[in-house]
Amino acid sequence: MLATETKRVSVVKSKKLFQRCGSLIGLLILFACGDQAPSAPAGDKPLVIAHRGASGYLPEHTIAAKAMAFAQGADYIEQDLVMTRDDEIVVLHDHHLDTVTNVAKLFPDRAREDGRYYVIDFTLGEIRQLAVSERFGVRNGEVSAIFPRRFPLNQSTFKVNTFAEEIELIQGLNRSTGKSVGIYAEIKSPAFHREEGKDISAAVLGVLKTYGYVHAGDKVFLQCFDPYELVRIRQELMPAMSMDVQLVQLIGYGEEFAPLLTTDGIQQVAAYAAGIGPSMHLLVDPDSDADDLQVSDLVRMAHAAGLKVHPYTFRRESDQIPPYAKDLEDLLDIFVNRVGVDGVFTDFPDRVVKFLATNP
Amino acid sequence: MLATETKRVSVVKSKKLFQRCGSLIGLLILFACGDQAPSAPAGDKPLVIAHRGASGYLPEHTIAAKAMAFAQGADYIEQDLVMTRDDEIVVLHDHHLDTVTNVAKLFPDRAREDGRYYVIDFTLGEIRQLAVSERFGVRNGEVSAIFPRRFPLNQSTFKVNTFAEEIELIQGLNRSTGKSVGIYAEIKSPAFHREEGKDISAAVLGVLKTYGYVHAGDKVFLQCFDPYELVRIRQELMPAMSMDVQLVQLIGYGEEFAPLLTTDGIQQVAAYAAGIGPSMHLLVDPDSDADDLQVSDLVRMAHAAGLKVHPYTFRRESDQIPPYAKDLEDLLDIFVNRVGVDGVFTDFPDRVVKFLATNP
Repeated sequence: MLATETKRVSVVKSKKLFQRCGSLIGLLILFACGDQAPSAPAGDKPLVIAHRGASGYLPEHTIAAKAMAFAQGADYIEQDLVMTRDDEIVVLHDHHLDTVTNVAKLFPDRAREDGRYYVIDFTLGEIRQLAVSERFGVRNGEVSAIFPRRFPLNQSTFKVNTFAEEIELIQGLNRSTGKSVGIYAEIKSPAFHREEGKDISAAVLGVLKTYGYVHAGDKVFLQCFDPYELVRIRQELMPAMSMDVQLVQLIGYGEEFAPLLTTDGIQQVAAYAAGIGPSMHLLVDPDSDADDLQVSDLVRMAHAAGLKVHPYTFRRESDQIPPYAKDLEDLLDIFVNRVGVDGVFTDFPDRVVKFLATNP
Repeated sequence: MLATETKRVSVVKSKKLFQRCGSLIGLLILFACGDQAPSAPAGDKPLVIAHRGASGYLPEHTIAAKAMAFAQGADYIEQDLVMTRDDEIVVLHDHHLDTVTNVAKLFPDRAREDGRYYVIDFTLGEIRQLAVSERFGVRNGEVSAIFPRRFPLNQSTFKVNTFAEEIELIQGLNRSTGKSVGIYAEIKSPAFHREEGKDISAAVLGVLKTYGYVHAGDKVFLQCFDPYELVRIRQELMPAMSMDVQLVQLIGYGEEFAPLLTTDGIQQVAAYAAGIGPSMHLLVDPDSDADDLQVSDLVRMAHAAGLKVHPYTFRRESDQIPPYAKDLEDLLDIFVNRVGVDGVFTDFPDRVVKFLATNP
């Protein structure tokens, strides 16, 4: 999931994803299609997907944040996955270390020319030495929290964990609680990993298989923003490994995703994926008025193609709530009861669980 | 809290606690007093005290188990405290390391003559190298879980944390959630620590003060089995540090605790403590029949002396439920609605929270 989101459907300069693609070209102007009737709500109760764990309350992707998400009743818990120099898979949102750890303090000489510290330049042993903090930014030399009212910066002790360790946590909790919580893993930056000589998708599939996530009915979704990588996973990697897990096409709101947002594009996605994970702003125009919601055609198209729809990211902070909604619960009401999504990514699983428990 | 409990009020050989004591002598035969009418229920909703965290679901005293307990709605989260060789305070139930860590594998030459590995023989740096597991026992060379249906042995990665780190976790979560969860710290084996040259009580008070737990109204209970140490804390240590936190006298069912279980004894406890933490078997005779509960006079005596009563330990496992109760919820019904306790120590905070939410 994107680290930060603006509330406008903006034009992003990068065309990396689709510059190799001829077959998916075509652009649906989502919010100008005339048909803005809300989709029917999905039949099943929407899934609560804990975005980086209970990241609204504890530093993202820590084992504690995952345990909290589990306790709060999430149906699925998300892992963002990147690779280390020694080919271990760790759970971190970015392929950089500098926005959630003290890497700059512990390894000051290990930044690349762009000033960033890359996970792929460090061994797991080195990464285990780092302290993980609530996400922060540095502006004019001042360190400040991205979400100031969340868990305090640099407090208590948290570590980076591996994908295997997190799966073992969730499977162990499933045993001790009798629940059946799933994993929702994202392959981060497969092209970057390939340029660095690593096949992250093959490695991730290997871990999934080791832990028994093999078939379409197993409680795992494997998500990626890169449609080419998902096609490769579906057509090459999974058949070779006798695997068939559910894939999810993430969709941002840059123009590189435009080809996916057509009837043809969505049908092509349905050939390899079980669902889509769009920005919420692709489903409801963030410029909408509360009494005149502009709902796009995307959920209807996706459902027509047999795809589940799991938008991101539902947060409590007022600057994360689009102007057409009063608060997180109002936003959930819109997306669950009017837009008809099948699940939501949220930093606040408890709030969504509570909303759904009382939702008629 | 005791690691294991039998269900009988047994005679324990050790008289360590009270052999120095003349003033507290006297023995109430608790279950032979004739007056077995249940106490009135306490006025406030009983406190949910997470015993070693959500230890029914995750390895005890890990940060993840504490985060889970917080998420499940515990009012207080318990820390058992012991000291390292370099005077750090860590959160572990025992002053031994061998029943919850891989110390025997990593430091095979560091056991004492009794075969045990003592926290006090290791530095914090060494202890941080250990992997924490679900509690286990070794019989005839075979390792097995104490509670076989809980979190699996040696799965995922957990570490020992310091008292300060756990306080920072809870205080950080209080900030990010807007809650006000308290800490419930136990000073373990003060006499043992003293023999080893360490004043654990003074050290624990120092940490409490650093983190703002100073006054009787602050959200902390400080518990200990040793009444002499509690008297010392009340009369010497806290006045010298300008502190006045609530103390809790833990009470086991060995004969060394008998002097506390008289009207005089309880009144003496009330001079230094705000509450007692008795074994549940001191409140209801474990030999009781379901239709003829033998409720002791202890809650009535304690309430008459102004003491809160927080019995231990409420678990879901059938061999942890006294024969007079059907299951955990039935046991809670007895203790909350008939015995009238003011809180319970539980390995399953979610179950107690749910019980209390629906309790009339």
